[in-house]
Amino acid sequence: MRFTTFVLDRTSQALGRGPSISKLVVLFAVSSGGLVAYADSRLDNGVEIPQGPPKKKVVVLGTGWAGTSFLKNLDTSLYDVQVVSPRNYFAFTPLLPSVTCGTVEARSIVEPIRNIVKKKDGQVKFWEAECFKIDPANKKVLCRSNIGTNLDGNGEFAVEYDYLVVALGAKSNTFNTPGVEENCHFLKEIEDAQKIRRSVMDCFERACLPNLSDEEREKNLHFVVVGGGPTGVEFAAELHDYVSEDLAKLYPNVKDLVKISVIEAGEHILTMFDKRITKFAEDKFQRDGINVKTNFKVVKVSNKAITMTNPSTGEVSVPYGMAVWSTGIGTRPVMMDLMKEVGQAGRRVLGTDEWLRVLGTNNVYALGDCATISQRKVMEDVSAIFKVADKDNSGTLTVKEIKEVLDDICVRYPQVELYLKTKQMTDFSYLLKDSTGNVNEDSIELNIEEFKKALANVDSQVKNLPATAQVAAQQGEYLARCFNRMKQCEEKPEGPRRIREPGRHRFRPFRYRHLGQFAPLGGEQTAAQLPGDWISIGHSTQWLWYSVYASKQVSWRTRMLVVSDWTRRFIFGRDSSCI
Amino acid sequence: MRFTTFVLDRTSQALGRGPSISKLVVLFAVSSGGLVAYADSRLDNGVEIPQGPPKKKVVVLGTGWAGTSFLKNLDTSLYDVQVVSPRNYFAFTPLLPSVTCGTVEARSIVEPIRNIVKKKDGQVKFWEAECFKIDPANKKVLCRSNIGTNLDGNGEFAVEYDYLVVALGAKSNTFNTPGVEENCHFLKEIEDAQKIRRSVMDCFERACLPNLSDEEREKNLHFVVVGGGPTGVEFAAELHDYVSEDLAKLYPNVKDLVKISVIEAGEHILTMFDKRITKFAEDKFQRDGINVKTNFKVVKVSNKAITMTNPSTGEVSVPYGMAVWSTGIGTRPVMMDLMKEVGQAGRRVLGTDEWLRVLGTNNVYALGDCATISQRKVMEDVSAIFKVADKDNSGTLTVKEIKEVLDDICVRYPQVELYLKTKQMTDFSYLLKDSTGNVNEDSIELNIEEFKKALANVDSQVKNLPATAQVAAQQGEYLARCFNRMKQCEEKPEGPRRIREPGRHRFRPFRYRHLGQFAPLGGEQTAAQLPGDWISIGHSTQWLWYSVYASKQVSWRTRMLVVSDWTRRFIFGRDSSCI
Repeated sequence: MRFTTFVLDRTSQALGRGPSISKLVVLFAVSSGGLVAYADSRLDNGVEIPQGPPKKKVVVLGTGWAGTSFLKNLDTSLYDVQVVSPRNYFAFTPLLPSVTCGTVEARSIVEPIRNIVKKKDGQVKFWEAECFKIDPANKKVLCRSNIGTNLDGNGEFAVEYDYLVVALGAKSNTFNTPGVEENCHFLKEIEDAQKIRRSVMDCFERACLPNLSDEEREKNLHFVVVGGGPTGVEFAAELHDYVSEDLAKLYPNVKDLVKISVIEAGEHILTMFDKRITKFAEDKFQRDGINVKTNFKVVKVSNKAITMTNPSTGEVSVPYGMAVWSTGIGTRPVMMDLMKEVGQAGRRVLGTDEWLRVLGTNNVYALGDCATISQRKVMEDVSAIFKVADKDNSGTLTVKEIKEVLDDICVRYPQVELYLKTKQMTDFSYLLKDSTGNVNEDSIELNIEEFKKALANVDSQVKNLPATAQVAAQQGEYLARCFNRMKQCEEKPEGPRRIREPGRHRFRPFRYRHLGQFAPLGGEQTAAQLPGDWISIGHSTQWLWYSVYASKQVSWRTRMLVVSDWTRRFIFGRDSSCI
Repeated sequence: MRFTTFVLDRTSQALGRGPSISKLVVLFAVSSGGLVAYADSRLDNGVEIPQGPPKKKVVVLGTGWAGTSFLKNLDTSLYDVQVVSPRNYFAFTPLLPSVTCGTVEARSIVEPIRNIVKKKDGQVKFWEAECFKIDPANKKVLCRSNIGTNLDGNGEFAVEYDYLVVALGAKSNTFNTPGVEENCHFLKEIEDAQKIRRSVMDCFERACLPNLSDEEREKNLHFVVVGGGPTGVEFAAELHDYVSEDLAKLYPNVKDLVKISVIEAGEHILTMFDKRITKFAEDKFQRDGINVKTNFKVVKVSNKAITMTNPSTGEVSVPYGMAVWSTGIGTRPVMMDLMKEVGQAGRRVLGTDEWLRVLGTNNVYALGDCATISQRKVMEDVSAIFKVADKDNSGTLTVKEIKEVLDDICVRYPQVELYLKTKQMTDFSYLLKDSTGNVNEDSIELNIEEFKKALANVDSQVKNLPATAQVAAQQGEYLARCFNRMKQCEEKPEGPRRIREPGRHRFRPFRYRHLGQFAPLGGEQTAAQLPGDWISIGHSTQWLWYSVYASKQVSWRTRMLVVSDWTRRFIFGRDSSCI
């Protein structure tokens, strides 16, 4: 009876009606267990009455591109979802360089995770904590709350999982260069961008103080970017715009002392882009007075100077006011531990298979910057493939036999398709003709050696995916779709034929679609490398950049904020307050 | 010859022309000293060649309401102006409580000082540094740059002045209560508001963590405001709105555990307002579930609990998640030192005369929260006033004689006018009638004792001005106007007649015009006390509040930002990201 009353209170709360209606409900409740269950299923915080088998526990670590994309696309009514991340928001990281100079505000590019999940079915639990240990043997993760010291106890807790989705991202890679951690800024998190912004302004205010020599002023106004990749280059360009468009008017006495340097260990900046873009960027930076120092390797950073070496000059030290370190990513300690745990200690980065499953584990998935996909090589499986294709066990393959398994092979080993494309072959039979020298398709028959020879160079096309937001987002979406159709696909697999075992894979493996990449170069000019090696550079590309970045925002709120920030910048310029 | 070449380089730089034009300039430069001087006067950073008498140096300490208002109104072409402040921006502090919950963003209420001064004539120098010592004997201030450690040397420098304008503001007053500095938030600076915002979100995230007892969750969600003044009350109201309008949806599991307490040592909150407003606020807070604890004095704050006493309950300790301390203002150490230096060691706050000149100094002015005006008492001067008024030295004053000096007296001693108003007397003669019992105005003649008796109660009207933005801004504007007309007024004084010396004061003394005060109470309701004891409470007053605060913004930029923040809040609610 007490229980019924309890349900009554909850029900009237949940339905938001007065006591007269509640009485009606309680009558039904007493007579019908179904209604009780219905009322209860609407509760947020009540006792749990099991309804059928309990849902499987999915634990997601991280709320970056991969984790958030997974969450957004997951049918959360199917699972008991728990998210653990030290940040209770998703940050639109491609706009971080803009945040460093106040072109957009930090708050405009973040969206609280709770905002994202509150629209979804079921209940997603979020813990603001850092996962410091993954324990795949016991199917749990250990977490620590990193908020203040006011929490009773040490703030540690364990979360059990049935499926674990690891999307912890990466850390900046200092290559163990001494002094980098202590003296350089990184550009990976919102806080980094805010610190850089504050630091730029501090350098200007410091350079204006009385009783300083010109040398000291110049030192304070020397901004150094280490690393000529897209992030470093975009930051240098943003900073140049900030100085020339806004700060020059406010600090007229010192504006001519400002120097921006980009230090790159390689031959060129933006090497991941087409040569035309690299050339354009280098030329533009030279015109803008941004000092690009290629072939210089930084060996030490003190609080006053950066030391670097170059084959021709040897070691040189340059005094600087602020330095941003942006030379690539490294593996987080918690991932290192996991790699040891699962027998991947020898690798540089955690490896997964093509379905994003961590090699050496069960039900642990890893995506985004914290892992790479180990694409299975064709040559490892070539005998098995031959066996599968050779249906009549004749010891040779006909074109017909090959064509029957070709689709599955191309799905399982995308390098095959890629190789054909690169060689401008429209069909697999060209490859066979190429290897046998035979021109008549129907008469071709290959033995195992000839088959191996035909496929010998295919694996050269296997390449690691870049560590970009685009890859992470696509992986998150892919994995969520797999999770959503887990049940259906167990019954009716949709993946390619298994090579070494009978049957088919449950899902098709992950396949990355490259949609292009931007390199903003300042002065309202952007370079873009679009699919099919299309290159676009200039002011119109900047407008393409604006529209793509506005459309890719995670919510209408951030979209409005970002666009209004751009508008504000056009009208009033950027803010120079040291806050 | 070297000097000429130097000027040439600078000139060609300043004019932005090539070397061919420069040669022309150098020819003129050699033949005509005038051109050299002309060229030099355009330099920003070059050698100084005096042209006529050098301008007087005005040094302004602080960029709060008083300092910025002074700067905005000063004719900067008349003086060599230098501004020293640890903050390179002006903050619209009345919106700080809104910043604590993200109703407006921190950046929307700040304007860089360099933005404000760049539109002005002449050159205003700004140093981002903290003044740690005022040396009126040697007419200089000692400053220290507080930016990082990357500056060579200790970052200290001295600035000399002819006129010093001290507008350093006040610090929060903890009344030496143990544990306050370490465990409580204040609400005076932008950084404070940002920290509070972050801390509120941390409390919610902490309360959601697994493995916590309900008691621990309640502790984390207990928000305590110490001090029932306008700032504390507005913060409590903002926080209540934030929780009920936004956070309740995002944290449904813990929303019923939230508790907001306002602790006030006095009988009521908002005691500086009319009783009707106090009553309305207390009733509204009760309806909203905000716990108002009056007659409670906080005696200790630990990191887990706040201890307070009350005559009836004795000492009680309450666990809390976050506490904001807002009980009034205290004097900064640098001001304490100055007070010792100028013989004001016994006072609580630095005293100035009615022209904002620091008592015991020459050419040092103080305004805003860092000083109070010591209004000269009538009774101190009553004999001298009698002497001045008694033109015929008859030993008695006629009404005619009094009327001749009355205007000057009312200007010099505003309490006289205030007293008449309070007693609802329209004219000074009523006061005389009152004191002599005589009804026929013409026949009144007062001797010194009767005159003293008539004025005996007038000084009861002397009150300190409140420490508000309104007072500081009016003082800054007043002082700037005095500085702008320094020369004219020396020749043609416009102040009241001097009582103890011949002649007139240069300027009229500062006079505060009260324009009303708002007390936002949450739920789109505001109370306002307008001049003439008009009271206005409710939703319409909230709209008055919006329009007044929008119109008072220091620039069109911040105005647009604040209004767009309000709009964003109406559409999307407040952001809950922990950044």
